[in-house]
Amino acid sequence: MVNDRLKKQMEFILEVDKLKNIYRQSYVSDGSRHEEDADHSWHLALMAFLLSEYANDEVDVLRTIGMVLIHDIVEIDAGDTYAYDSVANETKRAREEKAADRIFNILPKDQAVMLRELWEEFESCETMEAKFAHALDNVQPLMLNDATGGKAWREHQVKKSQVLGRQKTTILGSDDIWEFVREKIDVNVEKGNIIDDE
Amino acid sequence: MVNDRLKKQMEFILEVDKLKNIYRQSYVSDGSRHEEDADHSWHLALMAFLLSEYANDEVDVLRTIGMVLIHDIVEIDAGDTYAYDSVANETKRAREEKAADRIFNILPKDQAVMLRELWEEFESCETMEAKFAHALDNVQPLMLNDATGGKAWREHQVKKSQVLGRQKTTILGSDDIWEFVREKIDVNVEKGNIIDDE
Repeated sequence: MVNDRLKKQMEFILEVDKLKNIYRQSYVSDGSRHEEDADHSWHLALMAFLLSEYANDEVDVLRTIGMVLIHDIVEIDAGDTYAYDSVANETKRAREEKAADRIFNILPKDQAVMLRELWEEFESCETMEAKFAHALDNVQPLMLNDATGGKAWREHQVKKSQVLGRQKTTILGSDDIWEFVREKIDVNVEKGNIIDDE
Repeated sequence: MVNDRLKKQMEFILEVDKLKNIYRQSYVSDGSRHEEDADHSWHLALMAFLLSEYANDEVDVLRTIGMVLIHDIVEIDAGDTYAYDSVANETKRAREEKAADRIFNILPKDQAVMLRELWEEFESCETMEAKFAHALDNVQPLMLNDATGGKAWREHQVKKSQVLGRQKTTILGSDDIWEFVREKIDVNVEKGNIIDDE
Protein backbone atom coordinates (compact mmCIF):
# COMPACT_ATOMS: atom_id res chain seq x y z
CA MET A 1 0.00 0.00 0.00
CA VAL A 2 1.23 3.49 -0.87
CA ASN A 3 1.46 5.56 2.33
CA ASP A 4 -0.60 8.72 2.84
CA ARG A 5 2.41 11.01 2.85
CA LEU A 6 3.61 9.86 -0.57
CA LYS A 7 0.03 10.04 -1.87
CA LYS A 8 -0.18 13.73 -0.88
CA GLN A 9 3.20 14.45 -2.42
CA MET A 10 2.24 12.76 -5.68
CA GLU A 11 -1.07 14.65 -5.68
CA PHE A 12 0.88 17.92 -5.43
CA ILE A 13 3.31 16.82 -8.14
CA LEU A 14 0.39 16.06 -10.44
CA GLU A 15 -1.40 19.34 -9.56
CA VAL A 16 1.63 21.47 -10.43
CA ASP A 17 1.79 19.82 -13.86
CA LYS A 18 -0.60 22.69 -14.70
CA LEU A 19 2.40 25.04 -14.66
CA LYS A 20 3.10 23.68 -18.16
CA ASN A 21 -0.01 25.50 -19.37
CA ILE A 22 0.85 28.93 -17.95
CA TYR A 23 2.24 30.82 -20.92
CA ARG A 24 4.52 33.82 -20.56
CA GLN A 25 5.11 36.84 -22.77
CA SER A 26 8.63 35.69 -23.74
CA TYR A 27 9.20 33.46 -26.73
CA VAL A 28 11.48 30.40 -26.84
CA SER A 29 14.77 31.19 -28.57
CA ASP A 30 13.63 30.30 -32.13
CA GLY A 31 10.56 32.52 -31.70
CA SER A 32 8.23 29.65 -32.62
CA ARG A 33 6.04 29.87 -29.54
CA HIS A 34 5.70 31.53 -26.14
CA GLU A 35 7.50 29.73 -23.37
CA GLU A 36 5.59 28.54 -20.36
CA ASP A 37 6.41 28.53 -16.68
CA ALA A 38 7.74 24.96 -16.47
CA ASP A 39 10.16 25.72 -19.34
CA HIS A 40 11.23 28.92 -17.63
CA SER A 41 11.65 27.25 -14.22
CA TRP A 42 13.77 24.44 -15.71
CA HIS A 43 15.95 27.02 -17.41
CA LEU A 44 16.46 28.99 -14.17
CA ALA A 45 17.29 25.82 -12.21
CA LEU A 46 19.96 24.90 -14.75
CA MET A 47 21.32 28.44 -14.60
CA ALA A 48 21.47 28.29 -10.79
CA PHE A 49 23.36 24.99 -11.12
CA LEU A 50 25.92 26.43 -13.57
CA LEU A 51 26.24 30.10 -12.60
CA SER A 52 26.39 30.16 -8.80
CA GLU A 53 30.03 31.29 -8.98
CA TYR A 54 28.71 34.71 -10.09
CA ALA A 55 26.48 35.34 -7.08
CA ASN A 56 27.69 38.43 -5.21
CA ASP A 57 28.16 36.33 -2.08
CA GLU A 58 28.15 32.60 -1.42
CA VAL A 59 24.79 30.91 -2.05
CA ASP A 60 23.29 27.58 -1.05
CA VAL A 61 22.80 26.23 -4.57
CA LEU A 62 20.22 23.62 -3.60
CA ARG A 63 18.12 26.23 -1.81
CA THR A 64 18.39 28.57 -4.82
CA ILE A 65 17.32 25.78 -7.16
CA GLY A 66 14.39 24.85 -4.90
CA MET A 67 13.33 28.47 -4.98
CA VAL A 68 13.39 28.84 -8.76
CA LEU A 69 11.70 25.46 -9.29
CA ILE A 70 8.66 26.62 -7.27
CA HIS A 71 8.71 30.42 -7.66
CA ASP A 72 6.00 30.53 -10.32
CA ILE A 73 3.73 27.75 -9.02
CA VAL A 74 1.27 30.34 -7.63
CA GLU A 75 0.63 31.38 -11.25
CA ILE A 76 -1.36 28.16 -11.73
CA ASP A 77 -4.22 30.01 -9.99
CA ALA A 78 -3.06 33.63 -10.23
CA GLY A 79 -1.94 33.61 -13.87
CA ASP A 80 1.22 35.13 -15.32
CA THR A 81 1.47 38.85 -14.64
CA TYR A 82 3.48 40.54 -17.37
CA ALA A 83 6.38 42.48 -15.87
CA TYR A 84 5.32 45.63 -17.71
CA ASP A 85 1.58 45.48 -16.92
CA SER A 86 1.25 47.99 -14.07
CA VAL A 87 -2.49 47.49 -13.51
CA ALA A 88 -2.24 43.71 -13.10
CA ASN A 89 0.80 44.14 -10.87
CA GLU A 90 -1.33 46.02 -8.32
CA THR A 91 -3.46 42.95 -7.57
CA LYS A 92 -0.65 40.42 -8.05
CA ARG A 93 0.29 39.87 -4.41
CA ALA A 94 -3.28 39.17 -3.22
CA ARG A 95 -3.96 36.75 -6.07
CA GLU A 96 -0.70 34.93 -5.50
CA GLU A 97 -1.13 34.58 -1.72
CA LYS A 98 -4.48 32.91 -2.22
CA ALA A 99 -2.89 30.55 -4.74
CA ALA A 100 -0.03 29.73 -2.35
CA ASP A 101 -2.55 28.89 0.39
CA ARG A 102 -4.32 26.39 -1.82
CA ILE A 103 -1.52 24.79 -3.79
CA PHE A 104 1.29 24.35 -1.26
CA ASN A 105 -1.18 22.91 1.26
CA ILE A 106 -1.80 19.89 -0.94
CA LEU A 107 1.58 18.70 0.42
CA PRO A 108 2.14 17.17 3.87
CA LYS A 109 2.36 19.99 6.45
CA ASP A 110 6.18 20.10 6.79
CA GLN A 111 6.73 20.39 3.04
CA ALA A 112 3.81 22.82 2.62
CA VAL A 113 5.49 25.10 5.17
CA MET A 114 8.91 24.61 3.57
CA LEU A 115 7.71 25.58 0.07
CA ARG A 116 5.67 28.50 1.40
CA GLU A 117 8.78 29.81 3.17
CA LEU A 118 10.88 29.36 0.05
CA TRP A 119 8.32 31.26 -2.01
CA GLU A 120 8.07 34.08 0.57
CA GLU A 121 11.87 34.22 0.66
CA PHE A 122 11.96 34.60 -3.11
CA GLU A 123 9.28 37.31 -3.02
CA SER A 124 11.03 39.29 -0.27
CA CYS A 125 14.31 39.29 -2.17
CA GLU A 126 16.41 39.80 0.95
CA THR A 127 18.60 36.70 1.27
CA MET A 128 21.53 36.17 -1.11
CA GLU A 129 19.77 33.11 -2.56
CA ALA A 130 16.65 35.16 -3.30
CA LYS A 131 18.64 38.01 -4.82
CA PHE A 132 20.56 35.59 -7.02
CA ALA A 133 17.32 33.82 -8.01
CA HIS A 134 15.89 37.21 -9.03
CA ALA A 135 18.99 37.98 -11.11
CA LEU A 136 18.42 34.70 -12.99
CA ASP A 137 14.68 35.33 -13.29
CA ASN A 138 15.51 38.72 -14.82
CA VAL A 139 18.31 37.72 -17.21
CA GLN A 140 16.61 34.60 -18.63
CA PRO A 141 13.71 36.36 -20.46
CA LEU A 142 16.10 39.15 -21.51
CA MET A 143 18.36 36.52 -23.10
CA LEU A 144 15.36 35.07 -24.97
CA ASN A 145 14.19 38.50 -26.04
CA ASP A 146 17.68 39.25 -27.35
CA ALA A 147 17.77 35.91 -29.21
CA THR A 148 14.45 36.59 -30.94
CA GLY A 149 15.33 40.09 -32.12
CA GLY A 150 13.34 41.63 -29.29
CA LYS A 151 10.09 39.95 -30.37
CA ALA A 152 8.19 40.37 -27.06
CA TRP A 153 9.69 43.84 -26.42
CA ARG A 154 8.58 45.02 -29.85
CA GLU A 155 5.06 43.59 -29.44
CA HIS A 156 4.64 45.48 -26.18
CA GLN A 157 6.63 48.57 -27.26
CA VAL A 158 8.80 48.28 -24.18
CA LYS A 159 10.94 51.26 -23.19
CA LYS A 160 14.49 51.26 -21.87
CA SER A 161 13.34 52.74 -18.54
CA GLN A 162 10.94 49.81 -18.11
CA VAL A 163 13.64 47.23 -18.83
CA LEU A 164 15.98 48.94 -16.39
CA GLY A 165 13.20 48.99 -13.80
CA ARG A 166 12.55 45.27 -14.23
CA GLN A 167 16.29 44.61 -13.94
CA LYS A 168 16.79 46.63 -10.75
CA THR A 169 17.24 43.50 -8.60
CA THR A 170 19.78 41.95 -10.98
CA ILE A 171 22.73 43.90 -9.61
CA LEU A 172 21.80 42.80 -6.07
CA GLY A 173 22.29 39.18 -7.10
CA SER A 174 25.27 39.33 -9.40
CA ASP A 175 27.54 42.10 -10.68
CA ASP A 176 28.71 39.83 -13.52
CA ILE A 177 25.21 38.97 -14.68
CA TRP A 178 24.27 42.63 -14.41
CA GLU A 179 27.18 43.44 -16.75
CA PHE A 180 25.86 40.84 -19.23
CA VAL A 181 22.38 42.39 -18.95
CA ARG A 182 23.64 45.95 -19.35
CA GLU A 183 25.47 45.07 -22.58
CA LYS A 184 22.40 43.28 -23.97
CA ILE A 185 20.17 46.25 -23.16
CA ASP A 186 22.54 48.65 -24.94
CA VAL A 187 22.72 46.43 -28.03
CA ASN A 188 18.94 46.12 -28.17
CA VAL A 189 18.34 49.83 -27.71
CA GLU A 190 20.84 50.36 -30.56
CA LYS A 191 18.89 47.92 -32.76
CA GLY A 192 15.57 49.56 -31.91
CA ASN A 193 14.26 46.42 -30.17
CA ILE A 194 13.86 48.47 -27.01
CA ILE A 195 12.55 52.06 -27.24
CA ASP A 196 15.13 54.60 -26.07
CA ASP A 197 13.24 56.95 -23.73
CA GLU A 198 16.23 58.29 -21.82
CA MET B 1 33.08 43.76 -20.37
CA VAL B 2 31.52 40.31 -19.93
CA ASN B 3 34.26 37.72 -19.36
CA ASP B 4 34.83 34.80 -21.75
CA ARG B 5 33.83 32.18 -19.23
CA LEU B 6 30.41 33.72 -18.63
CA LYS B 7 29.98 34.21 -22.39
CA LYS B 8 30.49 30.46 -22.99
CA GLN B 9 28.12 29.59 -20.16
CA MET B 10 25.43 31.90 -21.51
CA GLU B 11 25.96 30.48 -25.00
CA PHE B 12 25.33 26.99 -23.60
CA ILE B 13 22.29 28.19 -21.66
CA LEU B 14 20.85 29.68 -24.85
CA GLU B 15 21.70 26.57 -26.91
CA VAL B 16 19.87 24.24 -24.54
CA ASP B 17 16.75 26.38 -24.85
CA LYS B 18 16.13 24.02 -27.80
CA LEU B 19 15.16 21.33 -25.27
CA LYS B 20 11.80 23.14 -25.13
CA ASN B 21 11.13 21.96 -28.67
CA ILE B 22 11.86 18.26 -28.11
CA TYR B 23 8.43 16.72 -27.73
CA ARG B 24 7.83 13.44 -25.93
CA GLN B 25 5.17 10.77 -26.33
CA SER B 26 3.56 11.60 -22.97
CA TYR B 27 0.84 14.20 -22.68
CA VAL B 28 0.59 16.89 -20.01
CA SER B 29 -1.96 15.98 -17.34
CA ASP B 30 -4.99 17.57 -19.06
CA GLY B 31 -4.15 15.74 -22.29
CA SER B 32 -4.12 19.00 -24.28
CA ARG B 33 -0.65 18.57 -25.76
CA HIS B 34 2.48 16.44 -25.62
CA GLU B 35 4.95 17.50 -22.99
CA GLU B 36 8.47 18.41 -24.00
CA ASP B 37 11.83 17.71 -22.43
CA ALA B 38 12.16 20.99 -20.51
CA ASP B 39 8.73 20.42 -18.92
CA HIS B 40 9.71 16.87 -18.05
CA SER B 41 13.10 17.90 -16.63
CA TRP B 42 11.53 20.60 -14.45
CA HIS B 43 9.05 18.08 -13.13
CA LEU B 44 11.80 15.57 -12.28
CA ALA B 45 13.90 18.24 -10.54
CA LEU B 46 10.95 19.21 -8.36
CA MET B 47 10.30 15.53 -7.59
CA ALA B 48 13.96 15.04 -6.61
CA PHE B 49 13.63 18.07 -4.32
CA LEU B 50 10.48 16.74 -2.61
CA LEU B 51 10.85 12.95 -2.69
CA SER B 52 14.47 12.25 -1.77
CA GLU B 53 13.30 10.71 1.52
CA TYR B 54 12.10 7.72 -0.54
CA ALA B 55 15.44 6.88 -2.15
CA ASN B 56 16.56 3.40 -1.08
CA ASP B 57 19.72 4.90 0.38
CA GLU B 58 20.86 8.44 1.13
CA VAL B 59 21.25 10.62 -1.97
CA ASP B 60 23.01 13.91 -2.66
CA VAL B 61 19.89 15.86 -3.66
CA LEU B 62 21.78 18.60 -5.52
CA ARG B 63 23.67 16.02 -7.58
CA THR B 64 20.41 14.19 -8.36
CA ILE B 65 18.76 17.44 -9.42
CA GLY B 66 21.75 18.37 -11.61
CA MET B 67 21.44 14.97 -13.25
CA VAL B 68 17.74 15.22 -14.05
CA LEU B 69 18.08 18.83 -15.24
CA ILE B 70 20.58 17.76 -17.92
CA HIS B 71 19.71 14.08 -18.59
CA ASP B 72 17.77 14.79 -21.78
CA ILE B 73 19.93 17.59 -23.23
CA VAL B 74 21.49 15.15 -25.72
CA GLU B 75 18.05 14.81 -27.29
CA ILE B 76 18.47 18.29 -28.78
CA ASP B 77 20.58 16.57 -31.46
CA ALA B 78 19.60 12.92 -30.99
CA GLY B 79 15.84 13.38 -30.70
CA ASP B 80 13.51 11.73 -28.22
CA THR B 81 13.62 7.95 -28.45
CA TYR B 82 10.30 6.48 -27.36
CA ALA B 83 10.83 3.95 -24.58
CA TYR B 84 8.88 1.31 -26.50
CA ASP B 85 10.54 1.81 -29.91
CA SER B 86 13.03 -1.07 -30.03
CA VAL B 87 14.53 -0.18 -33.43
CA ALA B 88 15.36 3.42 -32.48
CA ASN B 89 16.73 2.24 -29.15
CA GLU B 90 19.47 0.26 -30.96
CA THR B 91 21.09 3.43 -32.35
CA LYS B 92 20.26 5.60 -29.34
CA ARG B 93 23.62 5.43 -27.55
CA ALA B 94 25.69 6.39 -30.61
CA ARG B 95 23.41 9.32 -31.48
CA GLU B 96 23.43 10.57 -27.92
CA GLU B 97 27.22 10.35 -27.47
CA LYS B 98 27.75 12.51 -30.53
CA ALA B 99 25.26 15.01 -29.16
CA ALA B 100 26.97 15.06 -25.75
CA ASP B 101 30.32 15.75 -27.45
CA ARG B 102 28.93 18.78 -29.22
CA ILE B 103 26.57 20.31 -26.70
CA PHE B 104 28.41 19.97 -23.38
CA ASN B 105 31.60 21.29 -24.98
CA ILE B 106 30.02 24.69 -25.54
CA LEU B 107 30.69 25.17 -21.81
CA PRO B 108 34.08 26.04 -20.29
CA LYS B 109 36.14 22.83 -19.99
CA ASP B 110 35.56 22.16 -16.25
CA GLN B 111 31.79 22.41 -16.56
CA ALA B 112 31.75 20.49 -19.87
CA VAL B 113 33.51 17.62 -18.08
CA MET B 114 31.23 17.93 -15.04
CA LEU B 115 28.03 17.70 -17.10
CA ARG B 116 29.40 14.88 -19.26
CA GLU B 117 30.21 12.92 -16.11
CA LEU B 118 26.77 13.60 -14.67
CA TRP B 119 25.14 12.42 -17.89
CA GLU B 120 27.30 9.27 -18.04
CA GLU B 121 26.50 8.61 -14.39
CA PHE B 122 22.78 8.85 -15.17
CA GLU B 123 23.14 6.54 -18.16
CA SER B 124 25.13 3.91 -16.22
CA CYS B 125 22.51 3.80 -13.45
CA GLU B 126 24.97 2.52 -10.86
CA THR B 127 25.15 5.21 -8.17
CA MET B 128 22.25 5.74 -5.77
CA GLU B 129 21.66 9.21 -7.27
CA ALA B 130 21.42 7.73 -10.78
CA LYS B 131 19.12 4.93 -9.65
CA PHE B 132 16.85 7.41 -7.87
CA ALA B 133 16.89 9.71 -10.92
CA HIS B 134 15.81 6.75 -13.07
CA ALA B 135 12.97 5.94 -10.66
CA LEU B 136 11.72 9.52 -11.07
CA ASP B 137 12.24 9.44 -14.85
CA ASN B 138 10.12 6.28 -14.92
CA VAL B 139 7.30 7.29 -12.59
CA GLN B 140 6.73 10.79 -14.01
CA PRO B 141 5.43 9.75 -17.47
CA LEU B 142 3.49 6.89 -15.87
CA MET B 143 1.77 9.42 -13.59
CA LEU B 144 0.85 11.53 -16.63
CA ASN B 145 -0.34 8.50 -18.56
CA ASP B 146 -2.52 7.52 -15.61
CA ALA B 147 -3.91 11.09 -15.37
CA THR B 148 -4.86 11.13 -19.06
CA GLY B 149 -6.67 7.79 -19.03
CA GLY B 150 -3.66 6.08 -20.59
CA LYS B 151 -3.72 8.33 -23.68
CA ALA B 152 -0.14 7.60 -24.87
CA TRP B 153 -0.30 3.94 -23.85
CA ARG B 154 -3.49 3.48 -25.84
CA GLU B 155 -2.11 5.25 -28.91
CA HIS B 156 0.90 2.93 -28.93
CA GLN B 157 -1.01 -0.17 -27.75
CA VAL B 158 1.48 -0.66 -24.96
CA LYS B 159 1.53 -4.02 -23.18
CA LYS B 160 1.98 -4.69 -19.47
CA SER B 161 5.26 -6.54 -20.11
CA GLN B 162 6.62 -3.43 -21.85
CA VAL B 163 5.63 -1.14 -18.98
CA LEU B 164 7.20 -3.52 -16.47
CA GLY B 165 10.36 -3.63 -18.62
CA ARG B 166 10.55 0.16 -18.73
CA GLN B 167 10.04 0.27 -14.95
CA LYS B 168 12.73 -2.28 -14.11
CA THR B 169 15.10 0.35 -12.71
CA THR B 170 12.40 1.94 -10.52
CA ILE B 171 12.78 -0.59 -7.69
CA LEU B 172 16.55 0.03 -7.66
CA GLY B 173 15.92 3.68 -6.83
CA SER B 174 12.97 3.54 -4.46
CA ASP B 175 10.84 0.74 -3.01
CA ASP B 176 8.13 3.25 -2.11
CA ILE B 177 7.94 4.75 -5.59
CA TRP B 178 7.94 1.26 -7.05
CA GLU B 179 4.91 0.48 -4.86
CA PHE B 180 3.16 3.57 -6.25
CA VAL B 181 4.06 2.48 -9.80
CA ARG B 182 2.92 -1.10 -9.26
CA GLU B 183 -0.50 0.05 -8.03
CA LYS B 184 -0.90 2.41 -11.00
CA ILE B 185 0.03 -0.33 -13.46
CA ASP B 186 -2.56 -2.70 -11.95
CA VAL B 187 -5.29 -0.05 -12.07
CA ASN B 188 -4.49 0.78 -15.71
CA VAL B 189 -4.39 -2.85 -16.79
CA GLU B 190 -7.76 -3.24 -15.08
CA LYS B 191 -9.13 -0.25 -17.03
CA GLY B 192 -7.74 -1.53 -20.32
CA ASN B 193 -5.34 1.42 -20.67
CA ILE B 194 -2.45 -1.06 -20.72
CA ILE B 195 -2.83 -4.34 -22.61
CA ASP B 196 -2.65 -7.36 -20.31
CA ASP B 197 -0.26 -9.80 -22.01
CA GLU B 198 0.70 -11.83 -18.95
